[in-house]
Amino acid sequence: MTTTAQVFHLKQRPKGLPQVSDFELRETPLKALAANEVLVENLYMSVDPYMRGRMRLMPPGSALFGAAVGRVIASEAPAMPVGSAVLSGRSWHSHFVEDAAALTLLDPNLAPLPSYLGVMGMPGLTAWGGLLITGEYQDGETLFVSAASGAVGNLVGQIAKLKGGRVIGSAGSDEKVARLIEDNGFDHAFNYKTADPLTELKRGAPEGIDVYFENVGGAQLEAALTHMRPHGRIPICGMIAHYNDDGVATPGPRNLTETIYKFITLKGFVVSAFESERDRFQEQMSSWIASSAIQYEETVHEGLDQAPDAFISLFTGGNSGKMLVKLTKD
Amino acid sequence: MTTTAQVFHLKQRPKGLPQVSDFELRETPLKALAANEVLVENLYMSVDPYMRGRMRLMPPGSALFGAAVGRVIASEAPAMPVGSAVLSGRSWHSHFVEDAAALTLLDPNLAPLPSYLGVMGMPGLTAWGGLLITGEYQDGETLFVSAASGAVGNLVGQIAKLKGGRVIGSAGSDEKVARLIEDNGFDHAFNYKTADPLTELKRGAPEGIDVYFENVGGAQLEAALTHMRPHGRIPICGMIAHYNDDGVATPGPRNLTETIYKFITLKGFVVSAFESERDRFQEQMSSWIASSAIQYEETVHEGLDQAPDAFISLFTGGNSGKMLVKLTKD
Repeated sequence: MTTTAQVFHLKQRPKGLPQVSDFELRETPLKALAANEVLVENLYMSVDPYMRGRMRLMPPGSALFGAAVGRVIASEAPAMPVGSAVLSGRSWHSHFVEDAAALTLLDPNLAPLPSYLGVMGMPGLTAWGGLLITGEYQDGETLFVSAASGAVGNLVGQIAKLKGGRVIGSAGSDEKVARLIEDNGFDHAFNYKTADPLTELKRGAPEGIDVYFENVGGAQLEAALTHMRPHGRIPICGMIAHYNDDGVATPGPRNLTETIYKFITLKGFVVSAFESERDRFQEQMSSWIASSAIQYEETVHEGLDQAPDAFISLFTGGNSGKMLVKLTKD
Repeated sequence: MTTTAQVFHLKQRPKGLPQVSDFELRETPLKALAANEVLVENLYMSVDPYMRGRMRLMPPGSALFGAAVGRVIASEAPAMPVGSAVLSGRSWHSHFVEDAAALTLLDPNLAPLPSYLGVMGMPGLTAWGGLLITGEYQDGETLFVSAASGAVGNLVGQIAKLKGGRVIGSAGSDEKVARLIEDNGFDHAFNYKTADPLTELKRGAPEGIDVYFENVGGAQLEAALTHMRPHGRIPICGMIAHYNDDGVATPGPRNLTETIYKFITLKGFVVSAFESERDRFQEQMSSWIASSAIQYEETVHEGLDQAPDAFISLFTGGNSGKMLVKLTKD
């Protein structure tokens, strides 16, 4: 039986874009199981942009953490026997000991295990709730979503298409832009690094935007505000353009006055807002997955030692779909 | 009988802060009355910050317009005999001919005539609806209002006090700040020209802000976002700091990411949103006025020729309370 775990710690708080040298892999002894505890071997872990914000608050030296899917390899908890698949908040660990009450049992028959870190998990619920609840998206409306190749953004666009909408997306490479149109059925897409967002929004949504699902901030928010329709809504899921601001913060949009005469609402949210709707979400999403109505992509880095690179690539455009780290060899 | 009117026209679109030379007073013949028309002599007119935005759109040479209170001096409309007091959209005119259907008959016994341009009129409805409807202000919450000596802002703060709230206001001079506390009962107030807004908000609202009634933009919005409580609301009534931006727009707040983890809503509105609630508003406001629960102040410039100066002083801090122009000598 394994008696030690490999665990990534935050060596120092990143300045600006995180570097591999900000992370440190340590070997840590595993404690013996008490009653109701299980030993879990992680199979997959998630890396997500929100972790960058957490790194501003964590004391240097802390163990990193976040969503992971693993398998119980030793158990003192009758409800979670050896072999159970579980969702935990213990990513960046090869193994860990945890009270069974802190883990969620997963059904591998409802959806593939890694999907519980993506389309069936936090990013899926974020996309679904942010669009339909916070954004109050109505069937047939025109949607603009930034970071549309990302785990959340891509689902947002696909859900709006399923609801009969017109969908415009932005992404960071011509290849990603082509896939938004060819693979995901977006009506218009553009490369935010080379195209002018306002020109592209006017082209893609000549009658204006009803909902802008905000993942990025900066010039895209400014262009969206200019091109919103009256009573438009902007659910603010993230502002990745601002996450690595240290010291000198990036200015916000110069045209917030657009909100006044157009009655525009901007509303920030995090996924916890939709916890009470999780069952309804999982039911709808698993049926969309089963009927292939929703496509999803995973970028998988192999090996726990690759986790820092996987995380950093979230900010450098190296990912497509949900970014995962696979911790075990098949 | 008068056969000509004095009418202010927009000579040229202002660049930045409007100048007296952007306005031109012309003498214009008055047409003869047709059926259902009345000739009105204006008594009071309103000048309001929103007119600055309109001047970006109006063709140079156009006659200016806005809210005014006048008296019918000739009538072909049975419902509006000579002597009737009326509200019109024909400010910047000494006299005008208008269809009676375009005018609102006023009751001088319910409230004084000039108050229909202020506390009983558009600014009053803006304050009341923006705070209670758009801002969803709840009894006892902590409010921050900028431009708190202005016609709208001052009422917003007073209404929140009537509802048991803690109220912090900002204004542009130490004298105005003192009056917010001494005359209006605000809990804390500061001079935004000399004090740091974040420091003042922490001092005045140690437990954070529930509602920020936004009239200004710029550094005060940024400080408010930082100091908002979870689920805070920011009704956006105006952003006077940005109205005279021409060419180089002032950047927006650098910390819109604050909205995300705090579930903050920003929502633009204009007074037309509350038209269906006008009766309920007038009933409540007139009873507050009758019981002296609401105080209001008017700054009155005398003579139509002073209208451009009155308007410009909205942007240079020269007003206190509702800014009016009195067109006739008593």
